[in-house]
Amino acid sequence: MNHSQLPIKKLLLNCDMGESLGQWSMGMDEQVMPLVDMANIACGFHASDPVTMTRTVLLAKHSKTQIGAHPSYPDLIGFGRRSMQCSPLEIISMVQYQIGALDGICRAHDARVEYVKPHGALYNDMMRDADILRAVLEAITSYDSNLPLMVLASTDNRKTESIAAEFGIKLLFEAYADRAYENNGQLRPRTQEGAVYHSEQQILEQALLLATEGIVISRNGQRLKLDADTLCVHGDNAEAVKAVRHIRNSFNKLYRS
Amino acid sequence: MNHSQLPIKKLLLNCDMGESLGQWSMGMDEQVMPLVDMANIACGFHASDPVTMTRTVLLAKHSKTQIGAHPSYPDLIGFGRRSMQCSPLEIISMVQYQIGALDGICRAHDARVEYVKPHGALYNDMMRDADILRAVLEAITSYDSNLPLMVLASTDNRKTESIAAEFGIKLLFEAYADRAYENNGQLRPRTQEGAVYHSEQQILEQALLLATEGIVISRNGQRLKLDADTLCVHGDNAEAVKAVRHIRNSFNKLYRS
Amino acid sequence: MNHSQLPIKKLLLNCDMGESLGQWSMGMDEQVMPLVDMANIACGFHASDPVTMTRTVLLAKHSKTQIGAHPSYPDLIGFGRRSMQCSPLEIISMVQYQIGALDGICRAHDARVEYVKPHGALYNDMMRDADILRAVLEAITSYDSNLPLMVLASTDNRKTESIAAEFGIKLLFEAYADRAYENNGQLRPRTQEGAVYHSEQQILEQALLLATEGIVISRNGQRLKLDADTLCVHGDNAEAVKAVRHIRNSFNKLYRS
Amino acid sequence: MNHSQLPIKKLLLNCDMGESLGQWSMGMDEQVMPLVDMANIACGFHASDPVTMTRTVLLAKHSKTQIGAHPSYPDLIGFGRRSMQCSPLEIISMVQYQIGALDGICRAHDARVEYVKPHGALYNDMMRDADILRAVLEAITSYDSNLPLMVLASTDNRKTESIAAEFGIKLLFEAYADRAYENNGQLRPRTQEGAVYHSEQQILEQALLLATEGIVISRNGQRLKLDADTLCVHGDNAEAVKAVRHIRNSFNKLYRS
Repeated sequence: MNHSQLPIKKLLLNCDMGESLGQWSMGMDEQVMPLVDMANIACGFHASDPVTMTRTVLLAKHSKTQIGAHPSYPDLIGFGRRSMQCSPLEIISMVQYQIGALDGICRAHDARVEYVKPHGALYNDMMRDADILRAVLEAITSYDSNLPLMVLASTDNRKTESIAAEFGIKLLFEAYADRAYENNGQLRPRTQEGAVYHSEQQILEQALLLATEGIVISRNGQRLKLDADTLCVHGDNAEAVKAVRHIRNSFNKLYRS
Repeated sequence: MNHSQLPIKKLLLNCDMGESLGQWSMGMDEQVMPLVDMANIACGFHASDPVTMTRTVLLAKHSKTQIGAHPSYPDLIGFGRRSMQCSPLEIISMVQYQIGALDGICRAHDARVEYVKPHGALYNDMMRDADILRAVLEAITSYDSNLPLMVLASTDNRKTESIAAEFGIKLLFEAYADRAYENNGQLRPRTQEGAVYHSEQQILEQALLLATEGIVISRNGQRLKLDADTLCVHGDNAEAVKAVRHIRNSFNKLYRS
Repeated sequence: MNHSQLPIKKLLLNCDMGESLGQWSMGMDEQVMPLVDMANIACGFHASDPVTMTRTVLLAKHSKTQIGAHPSYPDLIGFGRRSMQCSPLEIISMVQYQIGALDGICRAHDARVEYVKPHGALYNDMMRDADILRAVLEAITSYDSNLPLMVLASTDNRKTESIAAEFGIKLLFEAYADRAYENNGQLRPRTQEGAVYHSEQQILEQALLLATEGIVISRNGQRLKLDADTLCVHGDNAEAVKAVRHIRNSFNKLYRS
Repeated sequence: MNHSQLPIKKLLLNCDMGESLGQWSMGMDEQVMPLVDMANIACGFHASDPVTMTRTVLLAKHSKTQIGAHPSYPDLIGFGRRSMQCSPLEIISMVQYQIGALDGICRAHDARVEYVKPHGALYNDMMRDADILRAVLEAITSYDSNLPLMVLASTDNRKTESIAAEFGIKLLFEAYADRAYENNGQLRPRTQEGAVYHSEQQILEQALLLATEGIVISRNGQRLKLDADTLCVHGDNAEAVKAVRHIRNSFNKLYRS
């Protein structure tokens, strides 16, 4: 292993989980759960239902994967990907409701919510609007100020950090293995072509570059410095799971050395 | 006060609360909350939403009223009054989800869920089907075995008590001040004429007879012995609130003596 | 009657109706229905349910009030007042679904949807974003190109008219009797103070000025020329109904003369 | 072809379609649509959403497949398979709402709902409870008395026929190719083991025996005479689609001869 491949920080793998709904199945959770460190578990607003949440918590517990609440705007049909004009009080209350609901199911199985990662449009809105970020932080700090909030790593994390500090909340910065980045360090929106990578090779390369150099290459070829604690992966289909397995294996080698 | 008016046990007043939904208002919660000892707070499945739950928890806290989770089948349009054929796993998970959601909002405001009372059809189904009662008990004991379950007082509470004992759950038996009883000690179904009392005098009399003698007079004039811990009252309109205020005042005198 | 009180055009009264939901009651529909010419009936996305829709259609039919579909974003908790980032295809399909659902209940009672007025955030979004207006128009023209669309009258209706003409859809311009106007002819947003008038006198005056001169006085005292076909009134409470009754009586006199 | 293989009546193939929901995909509709004669299209209460309904209607139209409304109890999480205690008025209104909603999307695409087949628990409840059957029939006859209702073929269809005759509604009797029958001619409940056939051979045999002899063999080996107009098939996965294709090909040969 050459110098550039020395890990700069141990990147944890996080993955959205428990996004089935009643009879509708989504995600290969059983295959992915043992491969990741953190499971962002849907809370019934963009996906999931109480039985699915129970199954997902048990799966996470069995794999000793950390459980994170994955709260969303209330929008099953839009999968929480449509921005909704909610007031801070609405956001605070809906986030507390969802953390509590998942934590309720966790407590029933001797587990506990360990962090919070907003989903979809709520995540994007929080990253671009400090009032929404403050509402999410207020929700968390009131519920349990020890829960960290997962946010998007950018080329400069300081502004987000200073807002989180107002609420005494620790942040977990995440980067994406399978999403294209714009030059400004933002994720390319899902609605744009080329936003999601499907090539295993490309996903693996982005993961390794982040793990070893803390760098991501933007769509236009720029090297962006991203200070990340965790890497978001996806397990939607067999190809994606294969990519996650390769990342897991590569990271295991990297962090063992 | 003559002999028959000595209180046999201190009856607590409980009332369904927080049953507004978004723009739709229901119940005179601000007037009723200071008059009752226990607030059964809707959890979003038959009524309420995260903001309404927040407001209701704050109201209860301000009045030092005990907070109970009031979980339901998922049925806003039917107000949780339509029985749904759910499996035990579905019931266990939906009850834990709802207790957790309300407890989440409580924890955010330094409060806590202190008991559980299922709502509407889930309550009725639990009282007539031991499998459903067991599912509710299993949900509670897994979440927190110190939370009591509120159930309908009958002329013989022993069967219900023995099932609750399997799960180590304490029961709170409740009687109704404003509902007609059948000879068998069951509540007259809401769909039947005469099921709900609207006369303040009649409601007050039923309350006082329960408090002083542990007796309720059935529709057909039979005296039924009911061993109750709490009395369910309603605050849907100004008349109902007036009745609650009279009961509260009468009980205050009774228990002071 | 002096010159300024000659009606310039017969203004029809329209009112949002059928906004109850299951057990939750909203609006004094039975009192208001006979007083208005057009009933904007909720279709289940921001309010209402199939039984409420049936009752409202029967009420409208009994009063010979025109029935309009009042489609919304899917958001019961937010009462359709929270803007949602929907694609044109989503808007087209949800508007057709809702018109069809209401028309289904109408057809079952020998009635028919006669016009369309989007609700809340969808209405506001359509007035400020031509793509959303086009999606609404596309939905209507595909369903039945004879159905007019109700839109907000402004000081210059030509832009809206030219877009509607692309789809061959007739417009009905509406003004508000009980809402404050900004100088630019827009409604003052509900979230701002002073947006909704509660004084019967003020509501009646705005109605009469619109009926006789086609003029509304903005918050800052400017006289705005509004070319309106219909006047939106509200029947939320006894005060509001009283105001509607006065407007109805005044208009009856005006149009009889 | 020997005598026993002469078709006794042309059996049409019907299949549940459009049961995806937002991001959740269900059913291989594109493969199945050209193979079947009738598409039972979900209306948003147990599955589907306005965009999915639009896509499914366009698919049906392209294949010249008849469009049927597939209304359900309002229960996405339970996929409409949980019986709900609804009043006749609730059932009438919800069926009209759903027929109308689908017909609205049909009309927008120059198509039309051509029959009605209730889904899941509503279908089962209608087959065992004449009051519920009457509510469904009342809904249809009020909406459009020319729409036939699809019901389960039994060993004696006369009782169902006489109830339908009260409402002037034509019935379409259906048998199942992939479901086990009890000796009494009822479908084995899905909750029981062996209720659904997965073997292509078994499905094809049941289909052919119904087509050529009007006979189904019950689980216990009894030959039951079923007078059916249509055969229900499923397209949930590649195996199921293969079975449908074989049935289609066999039927094509049968009916050509």
